[in-house]
Amino acid sequence: MTNVIDQIIDRLGADAVRLGEAIPQHNHADMSGLDPVVPAALVLPRTTEDVAAVLQICHTAAQPIAIQGGLTGLVGGGHPAPGEIALSLERMSGIEEVDLDASTLTALAGTPLQTIQEAAEAAGLLYGVDLGARGSCTIGGNVATNAGGNQVLRYGMTRRNVLGLEAVLADGTIVRSLNKMLKNNSGYDWTQLMIGSEGTLGVVTRVVVALQPRPAHIRSALLAVRDTTTGLQVLRCLGRDLPAGLLVFEAMWREFYDVAMTTMGLTAPIGRDHDLYLLVEAPGVEGEAFETALSALMDEGLVLDAVIASSARERAGLWALRESVYEHKKYFGRGIGFDISIPLARMSDAIATFRARMPVFFPDMTWVVFGHLADSNIHVNMMPQPWTNETAKAIEALVYGITRDFGGSISAEHGIGTVKRPYLGNTRSAEELALMRTLKRALDPAGILNPGRVIEM
Amino acid sequence: MTNVIDQIIDRLGADAVRLGEAIPQHNHADMSGLDPVVPAALVLPRTTEDVAAVLQICHTAAQPIAIQGGLTGLVGGGHPAPGEIALSLERMSGIEEVDLDASTLTALAGTPLQTIQEAAEAAGLLYGVDLGARGSCTIGGNVATNAGGNQVLRYGMTRRNVLGLEAVLADGTIVRSLNKMLKNNSGYDWTQLMIGSEGTLGVVTRVVVALQPRPAHIRSALLAVRDTTTGLQVLRCLGRDLPAGLLVFEAMWREFYDVAMTTMGLTAPIGRDHDLYLLVEAPGVEGEAFETALSALMDEGLVLDAVIASSARERAGLWALRESVYEHKKYFGRGIGFDISIPLARMSDAIATFRARMPVFFPDMTWVVFGHLADSNIHVNMMPQPWTNETAKAIEALVYGITRDFGGSISAEHGIGTVKRPYLGNTRSAEELALMRTLKRALDPAGILNPGRVIEM
Repeated sequence: MTNVIDQIIDRLGADAVRLGEAIPQHNHADMSGLDPVVPAALVLPRTTEDVAAVLQICHTAAQPIAIQGGLTGLVGGGHPAPGEIALSLERMSGIEEVDLDASTLTALAGTPLQTIQEAAEAAGLLYGVDLGARGSCTIGGNVATNAGGNQVLRYGMTRRNVLGLEAVLADGTIVRSLNKMLKNNSGYDWTQLMIGSEGTLGVVTRVVVALQPRPAHIRSALLAVRDTTTGLQVLRCLGRDLPAGLLVFEAMWREFYDVAMTTMGLTAPIGRDHDLYLLVEAPGVEGEAFETALSALMDEGLVLDAVIASSARERAGLWALRESVYEHKKYFGRGIGFDISIPLARMSDAIATFRARMPVFFPDMTWVVFGHLADSNIHVNMMPQPWTNETAKAIEALVYGITRDFGGSISAEHGIGTVKRPYLGNTRSAEELALMRTLKRALDPAGILNPGRVIEM
Repeated sequence: MTNVIDQIIDRLGADAVRLGEAIPQHNHADMSGLDPVVPAALVLPRTTEDVAAVLQICHTAAQPIAIQGGLTGLVGGGHPAPGEIALSLERMSGIEEVDLDASTLTALAGTPLQTIQEAAEAAGLLYGVDLGARGSCTIGGNVATNAGGNQVLRYGMTRRNVLGLEAVLADGTIVRSLNKMLKNNSGYDWTQLMIGSEGTLGVVTRVVVALQPRPAHIRSALLAVRDTTTGLQVLRCLGRDLPAGLLVFEAMWREFYDVAMTTMGLTAPIGRDHDLYLLVEAPGVEGEAFETALSALMDEGLVLDAVIASSARERAGLWALRESVYEHKKYFGRGIGFDISIPLARMSDAIATFRARMPVFFPDMTWVVFGHLADSNIHVNMMPQPWTNETAKAIEALVYGITRDFGGSISAEHGIGTVKRPYLGNTRSAEELALMRTLKRALDPAGILNPGRVIEM
């Protein structure tokens, strides 16, 4: 270990390495809730070549590394394990180019998402990915986890927005495909393998993303519908009837709305006697097209009540409802949150199953369900009081059991990390897991990159 | 070899195997222009389990296989090499499900693209990929080559439209991820590695694709602009100003228009004195929005002339111009076509370079340039008379040289196969090629799947 750290100091200089108490607490943990760990060292490369040198040294010595971006992950991806060196990309931050001809942006991996959004906006364009952690998460972390967020319905997940990557393989080889072209079918697209592999197959160092035209006239509304099935009908109707389709389609089931209105004391924009509330946004609608589309749905009885935002302030009010979930901790203490996908055809039954089982297994526990319904992705948050490991395990078993029973996925957008690894078999077959291990062994034979995340080798 | 074929007959039955003259000519060649080859045997599996049995036998015996779909490929992917067994998916055809809740369609790999388009339409939806070979190409081949086509601007290439796959690995292992959910970040997405790998990493047997709402009110126009740079300005303006953006943005430079109007005798919809003609289509525009957007561009002097289709017949007339290229063979005999990408910022200079060098290197040769400008993807077709191997090689050197000089890609959408393999190094670095070989060796150690396509092991 000393030898490895000495070699790294030799190559990168002493100011690129922190040891012991000089390692900031920030680098001891991600947002998973796992106990903080002081890594064996914190390494702060300035260039891709620095990263390559570090990996080469660690590969030769079989020294495990935890790769750190903004450390906003929820599943232990960047959380150091004892004995691991933390490799943080925080010094590799900055936008290198905005290409207006190609509508692309090139940035170093440690650049915060919000910096990229703002640079796109300054160029009169838009970057399609947005999520709550925008201020602190990094584009490299977004790529590593194939981050989703609120606008997947229109712009897709990070995968769809990435055109090119530079990455360092486990043995220190730098691979570059800083492609800006929409079409480039020339050999295996290895960048697709990096995206979503949670830092276990390579370290992303540079990213080229596609930028989009900024939509004019975004309209927002909160709708109330009878049930999940009706909500999905509304999704299809609006996708068909609005000229440019939908930008946002966020669902909040009645448990969520109740907590916001009772415990948190928000003012109800529409009545509390409905089963499902939908925050919908549509881009590019001029004149009365939005009102017309919603009126038609009310006439058909699909939408029971609706409030349309008529100002930026009113729009912010609707989002405050959706984002009230980020304040739950203040009211309920530590919770346990899930990020699952359920096939849309089974969503209604899955919600009904949660509602049937929760009062049986966990009477009196507050819980909410909400999320990106259009993407098959719901978040289920449970608030056990008191929080114990045993309760957390029992809740996990319940949620992942229902997820498995309905053919869903245990991770829609947060990833697997170490936290969900024990449940990966609920979602993936033995053959798929074996294939993943084959890929891991081929690309990281010494097992140094984020070991234990996603799969065991 | 006899032993391998006997084993396959044993497992699949005699009616699943054709030998010698019983092998239809159809299976001797793809559309690359390579000399036909009679494969060692033609195997016609009926099920995924049949495919698995064949691969297991061939893997053990290190028997190479050419995987065949609709055989419409242009680069030798499905073209048998001497001694290879042809594995055709033609019997594995059919749509298994259209899921209206999830807006997905599940089909066997041998299903023609057009069958999928029609099933989507019958369900009131749309499948986003469309290309000229729609009647004979198969969805499995589309996945293997990450097919593009005319609507990539709006719906992306095949990669973006695929949600789930079933595939058979080289050793006969069946891997299934028949996912219908938009978000599913649970471990490595191995399906991304199959897409675009041209049958060298696995045999795709089943595909789940996303379906889209059908856009109402598609409007079409042919525009004339001063030059390539102006064409790109028009692309950005329309992408920004039309409520739902663009569906199609096809470019035809003046050489193309001249051939259509002179040699082929089409009627010119607008004057012949322009440099670049653009076939544009916009979805979801109501009322006068399309006319208003185009008028604004004419007022600004960006568009010099325009004709808007006012009926389905007129729209078909505009497409007949674009598709006139498929008739070139009748007038010029065998040509040599290229499918390249050029970064948009350098497109204008690349076109100018073609125009400067063609008369120097190949005086009197007819050539045209056209294609999916919005996607960075142009097709350059040369018509040498007479056609000789030497001329073809010289033309290739010229085109791929310019492509390399401008940082482009030697394959935008057609793939590499065997035909473009010698030029892959123009587009990919040594490190990238080494990584591709690592993946090939990990997934197909005996080298039986489409050997020699894309890369040498």
